[in-house]
Amino acid sequence: MSQKFTFQIAATDGKARSGVIQTPRGEIRTPAFMPVGTAGTVKAMLPESVRATGADIVLGNTYHLMLRPTAERIARLGGLHRFMHWDRPILTDSGGFQVMSLADLRNLTEEGVTFRSHVDGSRHHLSPERSMEIQRLLGSDIVMCFDECPALPATDEAVAKSMRLSMRWAQRSRDAFGDRPGHALFGIMQGGVTRDLREESASALKAIGFDGYAIGGLAVGEGQEAMFSVLDYAPGFLPEDRPRYLMGVGKPDDIVGAVERGVDMMDCVLPSRSGRTGQAWTRRGQVNIKNARHMDDPRPLDEDCTCPACRNYSRAYLHHVFKAQEIISSMLLTWHNLHYFQELMGGLRGAITEGRLAGFVADFHAQRAEGDIAAL
Amino acid sequence: MSQKFTFQIAATDGKARSGVIQTPRGEIRTPAFMPVGTAGTVKAMLPESVRATGADIVLGNTYHLMLRPTAERIARLGGLHRFMHWDRPILTDSGGFQVMSLADLRNLTEEGVTFRSHVDGSRHHLSPERSMEIQRLLGSDIVMCFDECPALPATDEAVAKSMRLSMRWAQRSRDAFGDRPGHALFGIMQGGVTRDLREESASALKAIGFDGYAIGGLAVGEGQEAMFSVLDYAPGFLPEDRPRYLMGVGKPDDIVGAVERGVDMMDCVLPSRSGRTGQAWTRRGQVNIKNARHMDDPRPLDEDCTCPACRNYSRAYLHHVFKAQEIISSMLLTWHNLHYFQELMGGLRGAITEGRLAGFVADFHAQRAEGDIAAL
Repeated sequence: MSQKFTFQIAATDGKARSGVIQTPRGEIRTPAFMPVGTAGTVKAMLPESVRATGADIVLGNTYHLMLRPTAERIARLGGLHRFMHWDRPILTDSGGFQVMSLADLRNLTEEGVTFRSHVDGSRHHLSPERSMEIQRLLGSDIVMCFDECPALPATDEAVAKSMRLSMRWAQRSRDAFGDRPGHALFGIMQGGVTRDLREESASALKAIGFDGYAIGGLAVGEGQEAMFSVLDYAPGFLPEDRPRYLMGVGKPDDIVGAVERGVDMMDCVLPSRSGRTGQAWTRRGQVNIKNARHMDDPRPLDEDCTCPACRNYSRAYLHHVFKAQEIISSMLLTWHNLHYFQELMGGLRGAITEGRLAGFVADFHAQRAEGDIAAL
Repeated sequence: MSQKFTFQIAATDGKARSGVIQTPRGEIRTPAFMPVGTAGTVKAMLPESVRATGADIVLGNTYHLMLRPTAERIARLGGLHRFMHWDRPILTDSGGFQVMSLADLRNLTEEGVTFRSHVDGSRHHLSPERSMEIQRLLGSDIVMCFDECPALPATDEAVAKSMRLSMRWAQRSRDAFGDRPGHALFGIMQGGVTRDLREESASALKAIGFDGYAIGGLAVGEGQEAMFSVLDYAPGFLPEDRPRYLMGVGKPDDIVGAVERGVDMMDCVLPSRSGRTGQAWTRRGQVNIKNARHMDDPRPLDEDCTCPACRNYSRAYLHHVFKAQEIISSMLLTWHNLHYFQELMGGLRGAITEGRLAGFVADFHAQRAEGDIAAL
C-alpha cells in the first residue's frame, strides 16, 4: 500500500474522469461517493456493512466530534479509525459549514468563530488553526480547510467578502496543516453562483497549493439548474491532476450530472437519512415505503438489486417494520440506499473507463422515467 | 432433517437436562434461550446476526402480529418465516398474556376475550380457536395454548378459577389445533405459587396430552425466591420426556436457577430491551454503559467476549454512541447481550453433558461476585 497520497486518472470520457486515489489506508476509486458518518457512525450501519456496499471512504464531521466525544478524547483512544472501527480512509470536514448551520450564538471574526454547542450549550471556538488541530487529533486522512459558507441567495458583495475570508483561512489552514506525509489537505473553492468569484477563488487556492480541491457553497438551496451551471465551468478552474470534491451532493441525478462535469468525489447524508424516513432510492426512481400500496406487496424494493434488503425482504415487510417503528427498518433501507449509491458510482466508473458515459447517463434517465410510469 | 417434532434428552445432571428438539426447520439445542422477535424482528438485529449469536429458535408474539400487519397478511405473504427472513424454528405465544397486559377495554368470558388494539383502537377477539388459527396462519413451529395469566399477588381462589379456565381453554386449543405433523402444541401450566394448583394444572394438561409443557404465570412480579420455590417442584409434575418451557424468563441468574431445576426452554425480551437502554450483561455482571466512568475507557465491555461489540469497540465508543442516541448503540449492545445469553446456554449445555453443572454454577456466581467488586 502506498505511503503517499496520490491521484491517478485512469480514463476520461468528455469532462468525466475515473481513477484512483492512493492513501496509506487504502485506495479510493473515483468518482467516489462518501457515506457520512457524522458522529463516529454511519447511522444504522455497522462499518463492515458500509464497506460491503462498496464504500472506500467515509466522512466524519469535525463539528459533531469536537463537541462529543471531543477530538482530544478520540485521540487518546487511538484516533477516529480505531474509535469507529473503520480502518480505511476517512475525510473530515472542517466544521465551518456546520458551525454556521447548527451552532447557537455564533460570533464570526477574521480570527475565527466562537459558538455555543447545540448539544449542551457549552462555549467553543473554531479557527483554521483549531480546525487543523482537531482533524489531526481525529487522524483524518483527507483534511478540509476551514472555510465559511454563506447561505444562498446572497448579494455578490456578501459572497465575495465571505469567499475572500475563506481564502485567507485557506492559507492559514495550509500553514497550520504543515507537512504530514500520507495525509492530504484539500482547499475549498467558494464564490456562490458567480463565475468571476469562482475563478478568483480557484486562483487563490492554486496559488497556495493543495492535494485536492473541493467545490463548496453548492447544494445549499440554489437548485440543480444553478448548481449545474456552476459545475459547467468551475471544475475547469481547478488543476486537472488533483481530485475535485463536490461537497454535500447529492441526489442520484445530481451525482450523475456532477460526474459528467468532471467531479471526482461527493458526500451526502441523503442515502442514510432517507433510509431512516422510509425513502428508498432505486434505479427506477424513489420508493416511499410508508405508502399503503406496499402493504401486501411480496416484491423486493428492486428486483435487480443484490443488497440484503432486496434479497431477503418484501416491500410488505419493509412497510410493516417502518410503520411499527422497528430499528431494522432504518438498518435495511439505509443499507439498500448506500448499496444503490455505490452501485451507481461503480456504473459511472465503468462507463467512463469504457468510454460509454453518454449511453450510461441516457439509460439512467430512461430507467427513472419508466419507473415513474410504473407507479413505484 | 426430521419431518417430525421430537425431543431427545442426551444427558442429565441432577434435575437439569440437555438434549435436542428436532423439527422440520432444524434442531433446537436445549436448554435453549429464545430471543423475542415481537413484531417480526428481534429489535435492532438482522436475523442472520441473531443466528450468529447461537440462537436456534426465536419467538413471535401473536398479539402484536395479529394487530399489525395481521396474521392473514403474513399468511398471504408466505408465512412468518419468509416474512421476517428466519427459516429456522419459530415459537409463537398465544396472545393470552399480552392481551391482558397491553390491550385496552378487555372483556373476558368463558368463550374468550374481546379487546381494543393498543395500536389503533380497533376491536379484536381472541379465543382458543382464534389463537390456533392465527398461529397456523403465521406458520409457527411451536404453538402455545391460549391461556389466561392472572397478575400476582392474587387469592388462591382467583388463581384457581383462572387456572381452571385456562385448562378448559387448553382442551379447546388441543381440539382446534388438530393434527399437524412437524408442528408442536404446548400446554401451559398455571396455578400461581400454589403447589396444589400447579399439580392440578399439570394433571389436567397431561390428561389432554401435549408435545411440550410450559410453566406459565411466573416472572410476573413474584420475585426470584418465589419463582424458584415453584420451580423446585413444578417441573416434576410434567412428563420427563417432553420439553419444559419457562415463559418470560429471564435474567442470567434466573436462567441458571431454572435450568438447575429442570427447565429446557426460556424466552425473554431482557437482552434486547436492555441493549436498547444501555445495559450490557456480562459474565462479570451488568455494565451500565451510560455511566460516565466509561467515557475514556479503551477496554471492551468484556475482554473475553467474542461478539462484534467486544471485538471491535471500546467502552468509550459504546458510551459515546449511546449518549449520542445513535442506532448502532442498540445494534451493538443487543448483539452483545444476545451473544452472552447464548454463550451462557452453551456453557450450561456443556456442563450438563459433562456432569459438571454444580461447578459451572458455582463459577457463574463467583465471577459475578468478583465483577461487582471490580466496579464494572
